[in-house]
Parts: sequence; C-alpha cells; structure tokens
Amino acid sequence: MTGKVYLVGAGPGAPDLLTLRAARLLAEADIIFHDALVPEPILALAAGAKKVAVGKRCGRHSTAQRFINKRLADAARTHTMVVRLKGGDPMIFARAQEEIAYLAAHGMPVEVVPGVTAALGASASLGTSLTQRGIARSVAFVTPRVGPEAPASRWLDAAMAADTVVIYMGTHDAPEIAAALMAAGKSADTPVAIADSATLPGERTAHGTLGNLAELVRGASTPLVILLGEVYRAKAVVPAKMGAQGISRAS
Amino acid sequence: MTGKVYLVGAGPGAPDLLTLRAARLLAEADIIFHDALVPEPILALAAGAKKVAVGKRCGRHSTAQRFINKRLADAARTHTMVVRLKGGDPMIFARAQEEIAYLAAHGMPVEVVPGVTAALGASASLGTSLTQRGIARSVAFVTPRVGPEAPASRWLDAAMAADTVVIYMGTHDAPEIAAALMAAGKSADTPVAIADSATLPGERTAHGTLGNLAELVRGASTPLVILLGEVYRAKAVVPAKMGAQGISRAS
Repeated sequence: MTGKVYLVGAGPGAPDLLTLRAARLLAEADIIFHDALVPEPILALAAGAKKVAVGKRCGRHSTAQRFINKRLADAARTHTMVVRLKGGDPMIFARAQEEIAYLAAHGMPVEVVPGVTAALGASASLGTSLTQRGIARSVAFVTPRVGPEAPASRWLDAAMAADTVVIYMGTHDAPEIAAALMAAGKSADTPVAIADSATLPGERTAHGTLGNLAELVRGASTPLVILLGEVYRAKAVVPAKMGAQGISRAS
Repeated sequence: MTGKVYLVGAGPGAPDLLTLRAARLLAEADIIFHDALVPEPILALAAGAKKVAVGKRCGRHSTAQRFINKRLADAARTHTMVVRLKGGDPMIFARAQEEIAYLAAHGMPVEVVPGVTAALGASASLGTSLTQRGIARSVAFVTPRVGPEAPASRWLDAAMAADTVVIYMGTHDAPEIAAALMAAGKSADTPVAIADSATLPGERTAHGTLGNLAELVRGASTPLVILLGEVYRAKAVVPAKMGAQGISRAS
C-alpha cells in the first residue's frame, strides 16, 4: 500500500485563514505531521487523525529533517492520507523540497496545497500593502544569517535592493540584522513594522525604525515578521507628544 | 448607515484555495466588486450578492482606480457588507492601499482578508519550493517596467540580487524582461519556470531558461507567473533525446 502525502500550508495562524482545501484534507486525514508552531485550533480541525508534532517551523538540523522525511514515507506505507502541515505556505522557508525529493525518490505521490504565508497575514493585520504605486514595486522575503559564523549569504543584497523587505525568522537576531542592514547602507530611520502572532487573538503590531528595531521586538514571540521600507513611513512617524510608539495589542 | 468594506484575497484561482474566511464573507456579502480575472466558480460562492466587475487585476489607470474607490464608498453607504475581491492576495500588486486610504479618509471601516498569492499557487503546481537549503534564501516579487518610456525603477536591482525571482504581470513584456535581465548580467541559461493559470483546470507549466523565455510564454494567458533562479535548474535540464521542453498541460 502507498498512501498519498499532502504538504499543506496551515496559513498565518487564524483557523479560518486555512484554505477550504486544507480544511477538507485535515478533516479526512489519517495522520498529520505538524510543526510545533501550528496553533491548536487548527489541529482540532483534524478530528479523526493521529497527530504527530515534528519540531519547529524551520528546523535547522538536517538530522531532524531526515528523520521527518523517513517518518512521512513510513506513514505513507500504512495510511491512505498523510498530511504534512506547515505554518504559512509550504513552498517558502519551510524546507518542503527535502520532503518532496525524499518522497519522490521513494515513489510516493506528493501534492502541495498552498497557504497564506506569514508576510500576507502580517500585512492584513498592519493594514499596509507590501507594494504601493510610486513607492514600492518590489518585495524581498529573506531569512537572514548573521554573526561571525554566518556563511557568505546574499540575503543582505536582496534586502538592500528591494523596495519592501520582509524578514522571516528574525526575532532572535533582530539587533544583529538591524546592524547588518545599517552597515550596508540602510538609514537608521528606515521605517519598520513588526507583526507578532499576526491574525491570532493575541496579535501585536508595532511601528518604528530600523534604529529601534531591537527595542520593538523585545518580548515578542517566535512567529514574528519584521517588515521594512517606505510603505511603512506614514505609520512610523509618531507625533512628538505621543512619544515612542510601543507594541500595541490588538483589541 | 455605514457598511464595512472587506478587501478579500480570492487566491490563485481554484475555488477551494479561498480561505474559509473569504468563503464565509462571500456567502454573506450584499455586494461584491471583483477584478475581471476572478474565476466564475469563485463568484458563484457569493450566491446572494450583487456582483460588479471593476476592471483588470492590475488596472494601470488612475482614473479607473479613483472610480473604484468612489464606488466602494458609495456601496458602503447603502450596503452592510461590501466585499472587494482581488485575485491572489490584496496586499501585493493589487493597489489595495489606494482603496484603504480612500475609505479610511471617508470614515469607513475596512478589513483586509489575506489570500494565497499567485507565486505560491504556481509553486504548488510546479512542485518546486521558492526557497531551498543551500540554494535560495531570498525571494523577490517584482512587476517589471520595461521599454524606452519606463521610468527609472528598482525592480531590476531586486531581481538581480535575490536568489529566486517571481515576476508578476510580465506576460506581455516577457521578451523585454528577459533582455533587461540578461543585459544586467543574468546568464541566458538561468533556469526559468512559468505557470499559466496555476491551480485552475487548464493550468500549464513549463521549464526553460532565460534565453528562451519569450518562446516559453508564447500563447500564455494573462494570469501567468514567471519564476527564475537556481531552484528550477533540476527541472530545466532536459535530456537531449527529449528535445526542447514545451509547455505541458496538466492532466
């Protein structure tokens, strides 16, 4: 027996931002392998499925990834419908290719179901479009590597060249990311927005500048998106009497 | 009376790639203003709503945009639930900010509902992740302007700097876009993929190189996404005996 493996995007967090197809597949799945960050209400949609947590959204350890690959293949030998559920969309910063390649090499059918990626959930919460006529015609999505041990990487080139930049998985390295961008020539007053747990009940958004990014992300949780560029300038300008704008919790 | 306006992403094309929230809002809407490219089966989900087509997905005419802004505001004065339905996601290449700003200036509540953007629908159909460990850590989304009358634009910088590039709305200018990228230094054998009407029944995908992009897009319809970068190399290499790989129609 060979089941089918569906690589499914879980969307940005809110359960009703799943696609109709993803919701149907969850309801029909026999077994689900999900990232640790997929919220519980989404898993609850898979009422009849075995649920297996398989590490963080962007596992850095190849061993862990190889183990996930093998578990997916094993599951497809004993289950008809296997769902691999990934936060956001499977095809961006989610290591889908390693799973697709492994399953394909073992003759197992794979189907990818796209989802709403975090940058778009964040943009909806912020109310600011990533592109704007006359201001931004290009957007770069990057995952920076910083620090003395980071290999040569083009993330900085991409971030410097695009009109709007979205940084995924930058929470922990935010101070170093801001420093790298400023060292490369971005002005300290480049407008910045952050969206923490966007689309979820406790979502928080904040506006500021590259110069105070470290301050903005303080206390933020992991599913954080950092966005920068001129499209955020209108909201980054805070009247002096209001003082520095901190993180605002959604009502 | 003031109704609420929802800017809703219709996703990449397949009706079941709408989000659950979008489907609910369509079912409840009193009136819907939709792009010409939103497929009929999606509009059919809005059984009880008046439906108004308001031009192409990326209208270039400011006059048309101002007219849409006004119609949305007028509708919100006479309807409780107004949906502005845009192909893909509202916050990327969809001129949402102009509508948000106009409605906000007239005191009308607006809510953005994110959707699956075309690049992600295309990536699901292609089976190739936009990012891949060791190959691509950055993705740029661009809408090129080419030709002698094009204003100075940074789209080319962004496209040159990112590991993977997704070009929206490039069908008509594909030969000029390829020429601009090659003149800027991209190799003619840079791997390219295209996805035409991705996720829809008649979807077509093809692989090739920047050098034969013009040939690849020939005969393609408007909702086409062009993708380029090393992540597509594995599929771009065609065994000699198979000859040039043309557009393949999905089964």
